[in-house]
Amino acid sequence: MKVDGKDIRPIWLNSEDETIVNVIDQRLLPHEFVVADLTTVDHTIEAIKEMFVRGAPLIGATGAYGVYIATLNLADRVMDEALLEAECDRLKASRPTAVNLEWGVDRVLAKVRQENSAEARIAAAREEASVITEEEAENCRLIGEHGLALVREISQKKNGGPVNILTHCNAGWLACVEYGTATAPMYTAFDNDIDIHVWVDETRPLNQGARLTAWELGKHGIKHTVITDNAGGHLMQHGMVDLVIVGTDRSTYTGDVANKIGTYLKALAARDNDIPFYVALPSSTFDWTIRDGVKGIPIEERDPDEIRFVQGSEGGETKNVLITPEDSPAGNYAFDVTPARLVTGFITERGICEASEAGVKELFPEKVS
Amino acid sequence: MKVDGKDIRPIWLNSEDETIVNVIDQRLLPHEFVVADLTTVDHTIEAIKEMFVRGAPLIGATGAYGVYIATLNLADRVMDEALLEAECDRLKASRPTAVNLEWGVDRVLAKVRQENSAEARIAAAREEASVITEEEAENCRLIGEHGLALVREISQKKNGGPVNILTHCNAGWLACVEYGTATAPMYTAFDNDIDIHVWVDETRPLNQGARLTAWELGKHGIKHTVITDNAGGHLMQHGMVDLVIVGTDRSTYTGDVANKIGTYLKALAARDNDIPFYVALPSSTFDWTIRDGVKGIPIEERDPDEIRFVQGSEGGETKNVLITPEDSPAGNYAFDVTPARLVTGFITERGICEASEAGVKELFPEKVS
Repeated sequence: MKVDGKDIRPIWLNSEDETIVNVIDQRLLPHEFVVADLTTVDHTIEAIKEMFVRGAPLIGATGAYGVYIATLNLADRVMDEALLEAECDRLKASRPTAVNLEWGVDRVLAKVRQENSAEARIAAAREEASVITEEEAENCRLIGEHGLALVREISQKKNGGPVNILTHCNAGWLACVEYGTATAPMYTAFDNDIDIHVWVDETRPLNQGARLTAWELGKHGIKHTVITDNAGGHLMQHGMVDLVIVGTDRSTYTGDVANKIGTYLKALAARDNDIPFYVALPSSTFDWTIRDGVKGIPIEERDPDEIRFVQGSEGGETKNVLITPEDSPAGNYAFDVTPARLVTGFITERGICEASEAGVKELFPEKVS
Repeated sequence: MKVDGKDIRPIWLNSEDETIVNVIDQRLLPHEFVVADLTTVDHTIEAIKEMFVRGAPLIGATGAYGVYIATLNLADRVMDEALLEAECDRLKASRPTAVNLEWGVDRVLAKVRQENSAEARIAAAREEASVITEEEAENCRLIGEHGLALVREISQKKNGGPVNILTHCNAGWLACVEYGTATAPMYTAFDNDIDIHVWVDETRPLNQGARLTAWELGKHGIKHTVITDNAGGHLMQHGMVDLVIVGTDRSTYTGDVANKIGTYLKALAARDNDIPFYVALPSSTFDWTIRDGVKGIPIEERDPDEIRFVQGSEGGETKNVLITPEDSPAGNYAFDVTPARLVTGFITERGICEASEAGVKELFPEKVS
C-alpha cells in the first residue's frame, strides 16, 4: 500500500541482498519508521515474539520466510531432517494463538522436504515463502471485493450518508501484506467513492488501533476517529455505528473467533444493538481441527509490563511511561474468543458465509468433512 | 482512609486556615501526592473540570464546599441573591453528568438562603458542606456493611476460596470521602478477613483504575491485578470473576446507570456469563426525575487529547506521551449508560434493592411517588 506516495509492504526480500528479509519494526509506528533486517532464526523469532511483526497473515508470512532463513543458516546441514524440523518447531512456538504461523511454517517445510540438495531446498523455501506472501495479498484483495457489497448496501440504505464502521486492533495491511483483512472492505469501499468513517478502537495494551490502524487509514486518506476500547458500546447504543468488522488470529471451522482481547465485548454490544458484526479472514486463519474455540484455542499471556507501561512519543522521542503504582501487578491476556453465536458472518477470499460449520463448509467443502 | 499509616480524605478544611479547602490533586496519583488549596470559585471549578477531584460523591462534596468558598469570596455581597445564584450556577455547570454536583450545591444554597447576614450565610455554608461530607462518609460505610453480605455469601460458596471481584474506574474513597462506593464492600470484606482479589480495569482514557483504584487497594493491602478494559469478558468466560461491583455518576430511579465509559460493556459480559453485576451508590447519586437513562442522562464529551496522550511516570517524572499519529482525531465520550435490565441490583446506604422503579421505591418510598 502507499505510504507518502511510495508502495510498501510490511515484509519483503531485500532488493540488494536476497539473503536478508526486511520487515517494518511496527513497535515504533506511528512515530518512527524503522526497517529491521532478519538474517537468523533467533532474530526472526524475536521479531515475531516482540511484535516487530504482528497480525495473523503477516505472522504466517514471517514464519514462512523464517524457514527460508533457517535453510540459509543451516546451509549444508539443511539436509539433516531433525535439525531442520527443530528450527521449524522453534519458529512455530514463538507465538501460540495465530494459527497462520504453524500453517506458514509447515507449508514451506513440506516444499523444502521435496528437494534433495541444500541448494534446491533453499530455493524451494524462498519460492514457497514468496508464493504464500503473494497469495495472502491476493486473498486480502478478494476479501475487500466481497466486503464491498456489505458496505455498499448500508451506504445505499443511508442514501449515500457516511457508513460508520468500527474496528478493533489492527487487521490492516500492516497485519497482512496488502489491503488487510478487516480494513480491506474499507479500502475497497473508499477507492469506490463510498463515503465511510472508521471508529478506531485504540486497543490496549499495545494500542495497535491508535498506533497502526489510525496511521494506515490516515495515510490512505480515510476519515477516522480514535476512541478508547470502552467507547464502542455507547456509540452503538446511539446509532453511531453501522457495521463492525474485525480480523482474527484463529477462527474455528465452527465459527468461534479468537482475536485481540476485547473483541468479545464489542460483539456483545453489537448483538445488543442489532448491529452486524463481521470477521474478515483468509482461509489460512481457519483452524480446521478445533470445534470449541472458547475451550480449545490457546490464549497467550504476555508480559504484564505491556500493561503497566505505555509507549508514546514526547517531543519526537519514543518513551515508556509507567501508569500503575510501582508495585501493582497486572495480568496481560492477549486474546479472547467470541462465540459463533455473536458473529454475523465471515468475509473470506471465497465470499461471505455464516459463522457456523454449515456456513464455512459451503465455501470450503474440501476442508470440512 | 489510611495512606502510609496516616488518616486522609480527598477533601478537608485546612486546619490552619479554615478559609482554604484542601483537595488531593488526583491527576498526579499514584506517582506524585500533591495537595491543592482551593480559595476561589474559579479554582474550584477548575478542580472539578480538570479532575483534581472526580467521582460522583466527591464532586458533590466539592460543589458543596464550592458554595462555602463562594460565600467567603462574595463577603458582604453574599446577600445579593442573584449574584450568589450565579456563582452556584457556574459551579453546577462545571461537569454535566454527575448528579451529585447539582444536589450538593443546591443543598448548601438552600441553607445559606435561610440566613439573613453575610456572616451567618458563610457559617451556614461551611456547616452544611461539612454535614454533606460526613453524611457521604457514613453512607459509604453503610454501603460497605450491606455489600459485605454479598461477598460473604460467595466466599462461603467457594469454601473460603478467594472471591474475585471486578471493578471499573475508581469508585473508591478517593471518589467519595471514606470507604468509596464500589470499593466499600471490598474494604469491609477484607477487614472482616474474607479472602478477596480485585480485577482492576485500567479505565482509559484517564486510567483511574490503574492509577487510583490500584493505589488505594495496594495501600490497604488488598490483593489486586490491573487489567486492560478489554480483558474482563475473557476473564468472565473462564470463571475468573465471581462478582462485578461498580460505582455510578448518576442512576435513574428506574435503574439505568450512568458510569465511566465502558461500564455497559462489562455489564453485557456479566449477563452473558451469569455473573452478578452490582452498582454501589449513596442515594445522593439517584436522579429522581429521569425515567430513561440512555436517552435522558447527558453524556460529557471531553478533550480528545485525553485519549491522544497518556500520562505516566518516567524516572520519577510525570510525562505525557502521544500515542496516536499526530494528525489523527479522537472522540472522548466520558460515560455510558447501562440499562437497568443488565443490573443485578443497587447497593445503597439503606440496603440492597433491585435496579428497578419498584426496587428503588421499596428502599426510598419518600422519593418515588
